[in-house]
Amino acid sequence: MKLLNETVGKIEQIDFLLQAETQRRLDNLTKPQGSLGRLEDLAKQVVEITRVKKPLLTHKVVFVMAGDHGVTEEGVSAFPKEVTPQMVYNFLRGGAGINVLSQHVGARVVVADMGVAVDLTPSPELIVRKVGYGTKNMAKGPAMSREEAIKSIENGISIFETEFKKGIHLAATGEMGIGNTTPASAIVSVITGRTAADVTGKGTGIDDAGWAKKVAVIRKSIEVNKPDATDGLDVLSKVGGYEIGGLTGVILAAAARRVPVVVDGFISSSAALVACVIEPKVKDYLIASHVSVEQGHKVVWDYLGLKPVLDLGLRLGEGTGAALAMGIVDAGVKVLLEMSTFEAAGVSEKGAA
Amino acid sequence: MKLLNETVGKIEQIDFLLQAETQRRLDNLTKPQGSLGRLEDLAKQVVEITRVKKPLLTHKVVFVMAGDHGVTEEGVSAFPKEVTPQMVYNFLRGGAGINVLSQHVGARVVVADMGVAVDLTPSPELIVRKVGYGTKNMAKGPAMSREEAIKSIENGISIFETEFKKGIHLAATGEMGIGNTTPASAIVSVITGRTAADVTGKGTGIDDAGWAKKVAVIRKSIEVNKPDATDGLDVLSKVGGYEIGGLTGVILAAAARRVPVVVDGFISSSAALVACVIEPKVKDYLIASHVSVEQGHKVVWDYLGLKPVLDLGLRLGEGTGAALAMGIVDAGVKVLLEMSTFEAAGVSEKGAA
Repeated sequence: MKLLNETVGKIEQIDFLLQAETQRRLDNLTKPQGSLGRLEDLAKQVVEITRVKKPLLTHKVVFVMAGDHGVTEEGVSAFPKEVTPQMVYNFLRGGAGINVLSQHVGARVVVADMGVAVDLTPSPELIVRKVGYGTKNMAKGPAMSREEAIKSIENGISIFETEFKKGIHLAATGEMGIGNTTPASAIVSVITGRTAADVTGKGTGIDDAGWAKKVAVIRKSIEVNKPDATDGLDVLSKVGGYEIGGLTGVILAAAARRVPVVVDGFISSSAALVACVIEPKVKDYLIASHVSVEQGHKVVWDYLGLKPVLDLGLRLGEGTGAALAMGIVDAGVKVLLEMSTFEAAGVSEKGAA
Repeated sequence: MKLLNETVGKIEQIDFLLQAETQRRLDNLTKPQGSLGRLEDLAKQVVEITRVKKPLLTHKVVFVMAGDHGVTEEGVSAFPKEVTPQMVYNFLRGGAGINVLSQHVGARVVVADMGVAVDLTPSPELIVRKVGYGTKNMAKGPAMSREEAIKSIENGISIFETEFKKGIHLAATGEMGIGNTTPASAIVSVITGRTAADVTGKGTGIDDAGWAKKVAVIRKSIEVNKPDATDGLDVLSKVGGYEIGGLTGVILAAAARRVPVVVDGFISSSAALVACVIEPKVKDYLIASHVSVEQGHKVVWDYLGLKPVLDLGLRLGEGTGAALAMGIVDAGVKVLLEMSTFEAAGVSEKGAA
């Protein structure tokens, strides 16, 4: 609990006072004022978070955290559980969607086993910070103990810290865990106060009957465990997951280090929600990468008041939407850093003639 | 007219038969089927256009075409007319938004003077294919003759052809021309049948009174010239612009060469609309890069049945939104080319357990 408390204690309000100054610099660039829309907003947010007037985004890191879920025994997923370790190996070999898209935007991928149900073959590229061999079935009791929830978050923090020493200017979250849209939906339902049906989608591809069963399992998990919506650790322990806790840790650690975090899909957004319950100031460090076809994703963004950068009908997770959005954030910062001013370019300003 | 006719004659229907085959290949990749949404659609579209099963997008080119507009004497723009040549120099020095964003996505920028009102200082980087020194005031008569409209399109075609010899796998359109949202609105109003008010925005930043005046000028230009909505050359000559004609030429030439074209903002979309009137098969070669805050932009996409890739509140033009969208198209093609299959990665498929 010490590492978690220390990390949360370091999180400051972002510096809104830099907003007006950054906008003035943007307004001096050779374009009509405000004409680069969201790119300008993203550049301002990065300055406010980092407190660096000319921020560099050289080091971009996508944290992909994996874990298994006891609730899969209720039959909530279209894919078998062994896909979790298989996909971790795929990440390590560079063949997954997140590998392709991270390389596309110049980000490195950090892969961590936070609680896969089997022991994975060791690899120098694989970080192993297992809290357990999959969570327990949350439909029958808590997914994990409160101590395990803390440990999953602290493992996420220490993974971030290790990578931070190598350099991180922009972080992104991603995950893999067969069945993990189910705990994500439960977390989102509890914290936002929306019904299970409102925040439950079809995950990797179940049918209508599968969806109804999934909603029933989520509802039952909440009834059985009665998580306290105002206590992030209680929610995470009762209806969460180890990889979700790990991502909560990454998000808290990034905010403590003034690093902007691009949050990926629905599961990542549930981790962000837990982080915001633990420390509401975290919200301003977040960039909502995209809105997925998982219906609960929009619920989270609306609840947090965040506007997604992209809307591309994605529903893969892994950090794929976040990687794409990193490219847009990068573009916004490059506009701020690299465009000419009216004066330097000898271009007349509006109404100058 | 010969070059235009020959080019249009080469434009074939894209190969829809490749769609199912490409989707099968996408469905074999290690992700739930369809889970990369729009990225998968873009990859399929590139295959259907190029008829290459493993398309490369190594050479990306943004065509930025500049021209002046006689209608600016009606006071329709917030910026003075000398900004057109000033911004062309800015493009050549690499200080504009389009330079920064093209470099970000690995595209080269081709800058062409299609009809700027002054002679520009020669530069090896500047292509000069002037049709005239700015168009005439369309509120008083045709912006240009029919012969000039043909010439502007054919100049666009030959600029594309010269660049095509150096390699183009993905093209994008961009423009610069103070006052050019006014002819773009007129073109869009005529072709889509919507009122001038429906398709007129505030350009680079006029106020409400300026907007009302702009709408009145557009309405008057249409009344005075009575363009024939079914004749793209008639519309372009009466209420168009030289840079708009040049972009129409680029789009037609790209389609003739089976090169996908990412269409930028409102003005570029008006050029695409003219191209589609000349040859409706062109539509399937187009990728709608983004939807801008210019209200007529959405009208064009809806009319053509195209769904914009991005929605970032942009209203700069130059090709900036198209450059950003090129990055997303590139990502989609990389997914198709670089991701592992289930078999190669040893990952179980849905329902395999």
